Amino acid sequence: MPSPDPVADVGLLSPGRAGSAAEEATGDAAFVQGMLDAEAALTRAQAALGLAPVSAAAAVTAAAAEYGRFDPRRLALRARSGGNPVIPLVADLTAAVRERDVKAAPYVHRGATSQDILDTAAMLVAHRTLGPVLDDLATAATAFGRLAAEHRDTPMTGRTLTQHAVPTTFGLKAAGWRALVLDAYDRLTAVRTTLPAQLGGAAGTFAAFGAFAETEAETEAQTGADSAAVASDDMAPRLLAAFAAESGLAEPVLPWHTLRTPVADLAGALALTAGALGKVAADVLVLSRTEIGEVTEGTGGGSSAMPHKANPVRAALIAAAARQVPALAAVLYGSLAAEDERPAGAWHAEWQPLREALRLVGGAARDAAELAAGLRVHPHRMRDTLDATRGLVVGERLAAVLTALIDRDEAKSALTRVSRRVAEEGAGLRDALAEEPVIAGLLTEERLRDLTDPTRYTGSAGALVDRALGRPGPGGSIS
Amino acid sequence: MPSPDPVADVGLLSPGRAGSAAEEATGDAAFVQGMLDAEAALTRAQAALGLAPVSAAAAVTAAAAEYGRFDPRRLALRARSGGNPVIPLVADLTAAVRERDVKAAPYVHRGATSQDILDTAAMLVAHRTLGPVLDDLATAATAFGRLAAEHRDTPMTGRTLTQHAVPTTFGLKAAGWRALVLDAYDRLTAVRTTLPAQLGGAAGTFAAFGAFAETEAETEAQTGADSAAVASDDMAPRLLAAFAAESGLAEPVLPWHTLRTPVADLAGALALTAGALGKVAADVLVLSRTEIGEVTEGTGGGSSAMPHKANPVRAALIAAAARQVPALAAVLYGSLAAEDERPAGAWHAEWQPLREALRLVGGAARDAAELAAGLRVHPHRMRDTLDATRGLVVGERLAAVLTALIDRDEAKSALTRVSRRVAEEGAGLRDALAEEPVIAGLLTEERLRDLTDPTRYTGSAGALVDRALGRPGPGGSIS
Amino acid sequence: MPSPDPVADVGLLSPGRAGSAAEEATGDAAFVQGMLDAEAALTRAQAALGLAPVSAAAAVTAAAAEYGRFDPRRLALRARSGGNPVIPLVADLTAAVRERDVKAAPYVHRGATSQDILDTAAMLVAHRTLGPVLDDLATAATAFGRLAAEHRDTPMTGRTLTQHAVPTTFGLKAAGWRALVLDAYDRLTAVRTTLPAQLGGAAGTFAAFGAFAETEAETEAQTGADSAAVASDDMAPRLLAAFAAESGLAEPVLPWHTLRTPVADLAGALALTAGALGKVAADVLVLSRTEIGEVTEGTGGGSSAMPHKANPVRAALIAAAARQVPALAAVLYGSLAAEDERPAGAWHAEWQPLREALRLVGGAARDAAELAAGLRVHPHRMRDTLDATRGLVVGERLAAVLTALIDRDEAKSALTRVSRRVAEEGAGLRDALAEEPVIAGLLTEERLRDLTDPTRYTGSAGALVDRALGRPGPGGSIS
Amino acid sequence: MPSPDPVADVGLLSPGRAGSAAEEATGDAAFVQGMLDAEAALTRAQAALGLAPVSAAAAVTAAAAEYGRFDPRRLALRARSGGNPVIPLVADLTAAVRERDVKAAPYVHRGATSQDILDTAAMLVAHRTLGPVLDDLATAATAFGRLAAEHRDTPMTGRTLTQHAVPTTFGLKAAGWRALVLDAYDRLTAVRTTLPAQLGGAAGTFAAFGAFAETEAETEAQTGADSAAVASDDMAPRLLAAFAAESGLAEPVLPWHTLRTPVADLAGALALTAGALGKVAADVLVLSRTEIGEVTEGTGGGSSAMPHKANPVRAALIAAAARQVPALAAVLYGSLAAEDERPAGAWHAEWQPLREALRLVGGAARDAAELAAGLRVHPHRMRDTLDATRGLVVGERLAAVLTALIDRDEAKSALTRVSRRVAEEGAGLRDALAEEPVIAGLLTEERLRDLTDPTRYTGSAGALVDRALGRPGPGGSIS
Repeated sequence: MPSPDPVADVGLLSPGRAGSAAEEATGDAAFVQGMLDAEAALTRAQAALGLAPVSAAAAVTAAAAEYGRFDPRRLALRARSGGNPVIPLVADLTAAVRERDVKAAPYVHRGATSQDILDTAAMLVAHRTLGPVLDDLATAATAFGRLAAEHRDTPMTGRTLTQHAVPTTFGLKAAGWRALVLDAYDRLTAVRTTLPAQLGGAAGTFAAFGAFAETEAETEAQTGADSAAVASDDMAPRLLAAFAAESGLAEPVLPWHTLRTPVADLAGALALTAGALGKVAADVLVLSRTEIGEVTEGTGGGSSAMPHKANPVRAALIAAAARQVPALAAVLYGSLAAEDERPAGAWHAEWQPLREALRLVGGAARDAAELAAGLRVHPHRMRDTLDATRGLVVGERLAAVLTALIDRDEAKSALTRVSRRVAEEGAGLRDALAEEPVIAGLLTEERLRDLTDPTRYTGSAGALVDRALGRPGPGGSIS
Repeated sequence: MPSPDPVADVGLLSPGRAGSAAEEATGDAAFVQGMLDAEAALTRAQAALGLAPVSAAAAVTAAAAEYGRFDPRRLALRARSGGNPVIPLVADLTAAVRERDVKAAPYVHRGATSQDILDTAAMLVAHRTLGPVLDDLATAATAFGRLAAEHRDTPMTGRTLTQHAVPTTFGLKAAGWRALVLDAYDRLTAVRTTLPAQLGGAAGTFAAFGAFAETEAETEAQTGADSAAVASDDMAPRLLAAFAAESGLAEPVLPWHTLRTPVADLAGALALTAGALGKVAADVLVLSRTEIGEVTEGTGGGSSAMPHKANPVRAALIAAAARQVPALAAVLYGSLAAEDERPAGAWHAEWQPLREALRLVGGAARDAAELAAGLRVHPHRMRDTLDATRGLVVGERLAAVLTALIDRDEAKSALTRVSRRVAEEGAGLRDALAEEPVIAGLLTEERLRDLTDPTRYTGSAGALVDRALGRPGPGGSIS
Repeated sequence: MPSPDPVADVGLLSPGRAGSAAEEATGDAAFVQGMLDAEAALTRAQAALGLAPVSAAAAVTAAAAEYGRFDPRRLALRARSGGNPVIPLVADLTAAVRERDVKAAPYVHRGATSQDILDTAAMLVAHRTLGPVLDDLATAATAFGRLAAEHRDTPMTGRTLTQHAVPTTFGLKAAGWRALVLDAYDRLTAVRTTLPAQLGGAAGTFAAFGAFAETEAETEAQTGADSAAVASDDMAPRLLAAFAAESGLAEPVLPWHTLRTPVADLAGALALTAGALGKVAADVLVLSRTEIGEVTEGTGGGSSAMPHKANPVRAALIAAAARQVPALAAVLYGSLAAEDERPAGAWHAEWQPLREALRLVGGAARDAAELAAGLRVHPHRMRDTLDATRGLVVGERLAAVLTALIDRDEAKSALTRVSRRVAEEGAGLRDALAEEPVIAGLLTEERLRDLTDPTRYTGSAGALVDRALGRPGPGGSIS
Repeated sequence: MPSPDPVADVGLLSPGRAGSAAEEATGDAAFVQGMLDAEAALTRAQAALGLAPVSAAAAVTAAAAEYGRFDPRRLALRARSGGNPVIPLVADLTAAVRERDVKAAPYVHRGATSQDILDTAAMLVAHRTLGPVLDDLATAATAFGRLAAEHRDTPMTGRTLTQHAVPTTFGLKAAGWRALVLDAYDRLTAVRTTLPAQLGGAAGTFAAFGAFAETEAETEAQTGADSAAVASDDMAPRLLAAFAAESGLAEPVLPWHTLRTPVADLAGALALTAGALGKVAADVLVLSRTEIGEVTEGTGGGSSAMPHKANPVRAALIAAAARQVPALAAVLYGSLAAEDERPAGAWHAEWQPLREALRLVGGAARDAAELAAGLRVHPHRMRDTLDATRGLVVGERLAAVLTALIDRDEAKSALTRVSRRVAEEGAGLRDALAEEPVIAGLLTEERLRDLTDPTRYTGSAGALVDRALGRPGPGGSIS
């Protein structure tokens, strides 16, 4: 066992994310990799435009692939003096490139600013993290869709403000979960597709790229070589396109050093996802309560001391994520208000919250996929619970029917009497109705049986399930 | 002057919103109006499906139009017992309808739950508020676009971490502002278009609508009338469509009582808008500083005691909004995790933050429109500021050029010597370069003049402005 | 019924606060009153130091008492140009004073800056609001203390991660509620006592007061009058003391225009209070669930359509407040980072969140007092619930006893067998134990009965209740 | 160089904390250490009460000291199934104890619940982290106190809403910084002193401790040994006291599993500290601007490409922390509303935000100490800046003096004319005043010189500095 770095976070306080693909995709090493990939893409983009030798691009790309060579901790410590990790990374990368090809070294980071690299790295990390996150969301949506179809007509109690209200079906509940997860899936997918590369140089004008280009042109002119270097004014669009292509990210219209829409869009989609999964977790936590027991997590955290407990651990960890991500998103939204061409604090305040939001959501998506796949549904308990109010859960229906048959006020007071007898004296609802003088005789026994049967008062739940399942899932089919 | 209600908020602590269209569109009266509109639309939708007499729909619609009759304060006080204002409103509306048409009274709120009405009202309020907000954003974007075009080539200092970095142009800055405002415009527009009506009844199953329909059908069967009432299973889709049409909102796939994507989407778009405007404000606040003075608000808050002050009041109020909205959005995102078919708290926690976010953004958009329209730009101050570092602002360019001509390390130390002479001894940059032995003779005087001119080092700023202005504005044209 | 201002908020979206003392104490009218009181106190303080005629102080005090004369809405609208409501208020107050005593008019607001007045008003509002809040907290604490004493030995189920864990008592739960409410009471009381007046003039140097004083002195010297005016350097301490005394607030060491500890302390105490009450609400919401029914709110929001529902409305509204206040506190904490002698946005961003936090907490405290006073506790339901796991709720005890008597692993597997029989086959725990070969004979029947009785496994709950109730309540006694 | 764990965070995205004492005190290893210390303290406490053999306490203490043996990453991964890291830690610790003393193994974690250990560990981590944090705050306060004393009478421009307002002194500004840092110091110290140990067992009743004690007693009775075991009812107070003593934390009145005042108090004090330092940073960022240049960080992040830049890196990183901590505090305050005896999510949501807040504040305090120690103040620049408005910065004083000498309105319009000439025509203030007919002759030349000298209009700034420095610093003296 290697002796761990004493300062390291390795997930001890975040069991929700521990071991998830999102965790590995967002560690410091992944950010180092992202920065190296950005540097390599930058040199390749310049080579593609004739602003750097192809051999330099090859050397930088090769050196940048030696991820293990660049130690995150040492970079972190050296980041203090300039305030960001790109500065020491460029020094290390330049040294690595020089070892390979001394002439390539000057092309490392040429023309760029730290923010070009760190922002691009963050977008690469986000892009890579969201891959498995979307997979997990798709898995969860598919499983919820299957539950919805299977339990399309499984009656259960609808609850409002903690109280039994009227019947619903578990199918409708699961269809709602699926709908929310699909909403999250759609928004994350839309954001992921547009995550842009960042490039612009110190003040976003591409001026340094132009300065190097004009120098290259002069040198080449002196040596008689053909000038492939571009005029300064064209520099921005050509470089943006080439860099986006090389980095695999979207091409922005402008450098976005202080136009942080991409980060805000990410924040919003992550907060929505955390909340969507948080809704599922909130329901599972209620339905798993010992007194309710209508669902059980497949892999409840057992307790040897208390063998009757089946802790809804996945739901609890998702709920914990849903409590944290909105606050992190608020920090990111707050950083939109960034002064100048690079702000003193607002940018730096984004890094950790963005990473934390990504991996909290990644962990929650993984937990949701597990929860969805393993959820055990107990229709008998649902059926029993429906009777907990001895039929009063259909009170709404009775009121509707009676007010149509007799005077509204008379109906109301008759029902109040009946309800009281049921709730307080423990009478059966059907009997109490039959014995209520105002009601007796109004309804046949068969009608009474129908009216008081909670499983026959689920309204359009089935049709709504069908409608919701008509929305294509991530795989294109019903999922 | 009417004696104001002592509990009322009328904008005293929110000068950013006071007097804005958004303020009026989000007051308690507007929410009452929204609830009444929702109730009227509901009865009309039922009438359209044959579930209520057309005369009842007319009576409810007429009664609901008497907005002045429904006192927000009294509703607020009576909302306490049930926890929401729909319950007392329904009582009052029923009384008003009964006055007009006693037979219409039972059709008020028939089948619905409080949340159907309050959520629909909130969406109506959001829809109505966002109209003027979008207009103000369009005005601001157009004005920023005009500034960008006009100052396409106006050089100014680019600033990073509060320090002069390299030159940029005011055109590029204004183009960035426009881009952000358009991002906000686009997202708000997209959300506004999809704001859904809410309907479903107590547990979102439409069961009560079915109960009333079956009763109507029975009654009509008894009386020989044709039954237009629908079977329970069709109820949901038909009612959702009819209600959406009558209320003027989008039709949801499912009731969204605890599937709060619409509220979350609104939260995200509002937070992005506040932040986008906050970026503009942050820049204006820097550029308005007495020592900088590169822009001035057209209507700076004057102070008779301090006549030299031109307070950037619009920017300050926008900045204040940008500090508040992310936190309100976090509350809304947090409310996604809502248990059951109606949560005990998460729903109630949305109302005030949603309203506050809407009107803060509304106020900020109005302020941004005013700020944009009136902003005075001072190119001469910008030009002077560029010289504040006596030319060192082009240091990056010199470094690029020299490292191409001579040995990298030699170039570096020569530039360091030059910079020190300029920064510490007050030498002119051109002179210091000409007198530096390593550099002297390398460059012609003309080339030196070009290299040290900050206005000739704005890179692709102009091309980027053109590119950014190529994005169509709200009006379709260049805006 | 007066036609309400269409922009007004009168509590429609905040039933938690509607009608509370905190609501009236925090309305716009209350802030106007606070500002007027601050202006009057300022002139009196100056008169006390000989910096203004006593007659001027009397005139300003009299004019400032005409609260009804100063219309919040018109002030709000006029606040836009300068960005705060003090500027128009001073104009109106000066006019009102001039009507009474033309010579007094120049003494209105003399030497002060807008922030002196608005901050002092906010502290006055906070001070006044916290009075009834503390009363409500005291009421709640007393009621919870009574419940704790009364139910010191009422056994109920302890729940962890939604599952039955081991027994506890309702007394211990109520004692915990009381402890939290007392924590909130103590912190709010401590903050309230130190709420400081604000004074310092434009940049917090008291220079303008000195300027007026030197002028008064010169004028008096010319006219031969005795000079009571103080030298500039003494000005600050003397004025701070006098102003604090006249306003009834604490005396700060320094002007705190951008040293916002008082606001941050308030934010923290309010967030803690909201959370403390939120804990009570969270418990009540669980215990009120239809399936659990161990407590009922005294005044549950009834529903005529669903007579079996007893909505825990007070708890839901408290929970809603607990979701909002932390975010508002975050805005206030964020405003600590305020640049210069008065920031452009951070100060303005405090006003509405501080007010909203005050009245949300005020409403929640009122609701908590009502909830506490009316809470109905159902010991029989608690007793029944304890048996829901057919005795397994004492599994921990059995494990402890058995591992002491026999081999640990043997004991563990025996208990697992027993638990399975109980949980899956519905066997009685005592029977299952007696029939388990490894266990049979180890324990007498009496011991078995004792060991399996959940009411005999409440540990030190009683002693902890006693200990907790030993903490004096607000009234000094046990409360 | 060891190959780092790919998932690890080692500070790459948090240069503010990298290398700080707080960072090491809050790493996962530190939390493991805290949990082990808690387990050891628990066994020792039980031994002290005769509930465990002294030899067992020794064995557990020895095993728990082998921090390196317990790998945070493996614990993190195994924490997933039960949702917290204590469960696998107890397994590992038990194994380690068994190696030493097989009879001691059953005493590991005996009677406790996971939360007892994790909460105690968190409090130990907080206690240990706050030590160096307080040292850094003391260093900063001392340095700011020295700056305040040294620059007691150094005049500079007071700025409000970004504009020059009236003069102040740098001493007063630094005294304000010191006051805020002392506020933070005091609050953190107060909280640190009261950080409580956590103990109570599964539902906070100490029942399991009683169960083991009764078993021990029985066993001992059988074996004739003296029973030192306590009766169940005394268990809680005696164990709480012993555990607090052994762990070195404060003794709580009640188990606080869901009474989270300690965490909320910590949240508030951390948010206040971040904000207090954020105020300093905000000021330094303004004063460091290239155009202002009144202060410079001692160790500005240099840029070889832009040698004229002296980035205020320390201030930027502090500002970044100040943007994040309030949101984290909001999550912690939100977790107060925790249901039951252990909540499903609210508790889990605290861990990472609490740690992150601790180390962000720790990093900011370290940065503030460095910033304070190295800050270079430029009185000449301050003096120059005061003249930027050519004297209008004393306009307030002139208005005060003139309105006393001549008619108020006449004075006002005369001053407006003068100001306009100064601001627009570039006239000197003294000349413009002398040439203004209404004013000419009213004031002697000497008086005019005095009145227009900004350094003579600093009011009580000096007296306020003295007053503020009278507050004892952390060291007891003036600091």
